[in-house]
Amino acid sequence: MDPMTDEASQDQAETQSDESDGAPEGGPGRLDPTDWTDFRNQAHQVVDELINRFQEADQGPVWRPIPDQVQENLQSGLPRDAQPLEDVLDEVREDILPYTLGNTHPRFFGWVHGSGTPTGALAEFLAGAMNANTGGRHHAPILVEEQVVGWVRELFGFPDEATGMVVSGTSMATIVGLATARRRTTRGRDRTLGLAHPEGGGQGLVGYATADGHQSIKDAFSLLGLGADALRPVAMLEDGSMDPEALDAAIRRDLDAGLTPFAVVATAGSVTCGAVDDLTRIREVTRQHGLWMHVDGAFGAALKLAPTLAHRLEGIQEADSLAFDFHKWFHVPYEAGFILIRDGALHRATFGGRADYLTSLDEGPAAGDTWPCDLGPELSRGFRAFKVWFTLQHLGANAIGQAVETNCRQARSLARLVRDEAELELLAPADLNIVCFRFHPRVDSDDPLATPLSQDELNELNREVLLELHRRGIAVPSPIRRGDAFGLRVCLCNHRTTGKDLELMVDAVLELGRSLMPVG
Amino acid sequence: MDPMTDEASQDQAETQSDESDGAPEGGPGRLDPTDWTDFRNQAHQVVDELINRFQEADQGPVWRPIPDQVQENLQSGLPRDAQPLEDVLDEVREDILPYTLGNTHPRFFGWVHGSGTPTGALAEFLAGAMNANTGGRHHAPILVEEQVVGWVRELFGFPDEATGMVVSGTSMATIVGLATARRRTTRGRDRTLGLAHPEGGGQGLVGYATADGHQSIKDAFSLLGLGADALRPVAMLEDGSMDPEALDAAIRRDLDAGLTPFAVVATAGSVTCGAVDDLTRIREVTRQHGLWMHVDGAFGAALKLAPTLAHRLEGIQEADSLAFDFHKWFHVPYEAGFILIRDGALHRATFGGRADYLTSLDEGPAAGDTWPCDLGPELSRGFRAFKVWFTLQHLGANAIGQAVETNCRQARSLARLVRDEAELELLAPADLNIVCFRFHPRVDSDDPLATPLSQDELNELNREVLLELHRRGIAVPSPIRRGDAFGLRVCLCNHRTTGKDLELMVDAVLELGRSLMPVG
Repeated sequence: MDPMTDEASQDQAETQSDESDGAPEGGPGRLDPTDWTDFRNQAHQVVDELINRFQEADQGPVWRPIPDQVQENLQSGLPRDAQPLEDVLDEVREDILPYTLGNTHPRFFGWVHGSGTPTGALAEFLAGAMNANTGGRHHAPILVEEQVVGWVRELFGFPDEATGMVVSGTSMATIVGLATARRRTTRGRDRTLGLAHPEGGGQGLVGYATADGHQSIKDAFSLLGLGADALRPVAMLEDGSMDPEALDAAIRRDLDAGLTPFAVVATAGSVTCGAVDDLTRIREVTRQHGLWMHVDGAFGAALKLAPTLAHRLEGIQEADSLAFDFHKWFHVPYEAGFILIRDGALHRATFGGRADYLTSLDEGPAAGDTWPCDLGPELSRGFRAFKVWFTLQHLGANAIGQAVETNCRQARSLARLVRDEAELELLAPADLNIVCFRFHPRVDSDDPLATPLSQDELNELNREVLLELHRRGIAVPSPIRRGDAFGLRVCLCNHRTTGKDLELMVDAVLELGRSLMPVG
Repeated sequence: MDPMTDEASQDQAETQSDESDGAPEGGPGRLDPTDWTDFRNQAHQVVDELINRFQEADQGPVWRPIPDQVQENLQSGLPRDAQPLEDVLDEVREDILPYTLGNTHPRFFGWVHGSGTPTGALAEFLAGAMNANTGGRHHAPILVEEQVVGWVRELFGFPDEATGMVVSGTSMATIVGLATARRRTTRGRDRTLGLAHPEGGGQGLVGYATADGHQSIKDAFSLLGLGADALRPVAMLEDGSMDPEALDAAIRRDLDAGLTPFAVVATAGSVTCGAVDDLTRIREVTRQHGLWMHVDGAFGAALKLAPTLAHRLEGIQEADSLAFDFHKWFHVPYEAGFILIRDGALHRATFGGRADYLTSLDEGPAAGDTWPCDLGPELSRGFRAFKVWFTLQHLGANAIGQAVETNCRQARSLARLVRDEAELELLAPADLNIVCFRFHPRVDSDDPLATPLSQDELNELNREVLLELHRRGIAVPSPIRRGDAFGLRVCLCNHRTTGKDLELMVDAVLELGRSLMPVG
């Protein structure tokens, strides 16, 4: 057979096949609904159900165990064939929605979780429909992100030349901030030559954070090829904040040893007890030695919205880079973090430079000077900025700040409840929004038979108390270890929490602690 | 005044204030709607409008210029006060929705953009309402992501011990893949000691990709501290794929020079012309030298879903790591990429290890052996896996594969149209789904007055043709440079494109080219 003829007939078949693609709806390959009316009806039903879910956020247990059958359902293989939307939604209703972590429930206090809003969920639907790639180019979503960058600059008092972007979270923000700091010190040689090259500028680079600094800082050092050992632990003051004098001493010691200190990561809101470093003083120390100051404000940066608390962040406006999350105390749905960098030119130099196929044109959709992909490691990027924009536009920064105020007030109330209760013990300063405590019954010194519980027994008891709170879905604090003590960590960054929720949790801890006490 | 008394009265005020937080709806700080009925009505209206928008995806221009007034509106400062939802939605309707990039339109062919689906948008609403943080812990969203990981393993023929996760995109996936490769070679010393340390294992590490390899590969080398120079360009065969013999020679040369080759990045679907490397042969070469094989299948990995094209990926099942995007040819909304790593233990060793406050418990919400934060640099993570899960469950893998088949057929049709047209010229092989071409009128050799256009004139002409296509919103190919030639790059990965859309674009290019020709 003549291969040309064969190709020609194949071509003809392709043309015919292409013709049929012209069908307005549901042609071969088109992935839109074949029955729009059905899709529309089901979408409306989902909207009602999800709004009901938010309205009843305080109903039922915070978390519930996932039945074996559900776990099994969620192990089926790759779906090859289409399934009716209704069936898929039914699986979501039965196997997924009831078994989320509970962070939209008012008694979720674990780790540092945002609690979300219906507003944010609606924004995600809009963003999903726009399906914007904000890696670059000239379209409204890019302008929306630029507007959000402007808001962040305004909020934190950064200059106009500061650049920034919405990233997945503070972990990624810290990577971007520290990569920029690294470049500043190596004068860009790290980018081409690499850190191990004799002229790459990587020898002896060291940075600083406290031992309570977030794990993502050490992880960023590892990822960037600096090594976790290059992050030197700085001593803390009693409140858990970085000791600026210890920082100064550590830098001097490392300089004397011939190392190259390049960056300090200050923390605004430590994850264990909410400590805020003295940013003004740390800025003085870093200036004196010519070091970069990166601020990890993962949740604490939101204090800037709260009138009576904003002063705690004094000095943040002088940071070289600031990392924080919108999905925590700003309650934007997961995920949305932010990196802001004072020296925009350095930021662009760290990540900029594009291949031919990404060249900008002077106008049209391919236009634009700086694209977001020039400011970070991601070339395709979703429209995370939209939910930030939409949440702030609708709720307003003040209302979010009000929620922050409320949470800090609640933490003080809870700490007081703990202090006032003979069987409870505070494990860390509760200065901001985090309360670490444990069940610790005092021994009656008049009773000769009573022996105090050992540390191991106390730890076992508190672990059981926590697990029981979890199992029953009463409340979800997270586990914490302070020194040798195992405790319950209550992080108040939930806008649905009320004073009654905290009382309910304290009562449950007392009751469980008493009932689970080993018989002495 | 006794400070204790003062504190007591402050406490009392706090308690009272807490009392008022107990209001079921809209207490101080609560960020849920104050008028649920209004919110519900407006959400329903948004759903209808967005579904209409999808239904009319082929209406109107692909892209339109953003009016000055709109640009100005999108520069207003941080919103301090709440605004009615309706007003915010009106701004979205007026200033944002009409000015998206156009990648949901059937005649969007620029860069490599997914075109999204109503199914995916609905999934985003659901995910936004769940507001899951999939960094870890024990809840259904984690199981859903594990299920998606299983599907990816199944699809690409990876063993059960392979681990993976949904990431923002292939850029991030490549960073995770190469970080794991780096650790394999340094035996983990890079993680603690850093690359520049004499014993960190970073000296002389080099990797390989072709010059057509994606920019994100070089960027990953920079971010990881290896330096862009450590990525060695490997010669290509005529079809744009990596020349395995040249790879072998390059590795030998570097070994002879005392360097430490550690990884090869093969490409399945190059961004300029859709070339697919011979993965089987590259695997042989990498095995011979003990190198890691990372596959960048950003869009090309979707060929695995297409019955007549899947064989092009033969050998992918042997990769050490595979990076690809769900938001491209799988049409999941932005953003959702994936990293799959054959050696799960090595993967965990590269990113695992958690601080005290992230310790797992044996059961309850804090349970779980490997959390996703043990497999990548992100500690907070959104529920990106849900839109992948929902899209595949509803549409089925086969339908997505069908769309891939259709796009490749369309590319062959378009290449034929270009070849058949005397005034058009193909600039690169159009073997998969990408067609690079330009307007290039042949000179009538019988006409003594006709002189051919210079390369510069041709480039200027084609730039104008492209800009005019963009300005008028007729179609959006992206700019491309092949050698010295500027051309139009049509990437067919749009499930809404029909044969008619391609004919319309070709006709417009011819008409514009003729009308914009410099008068000779």
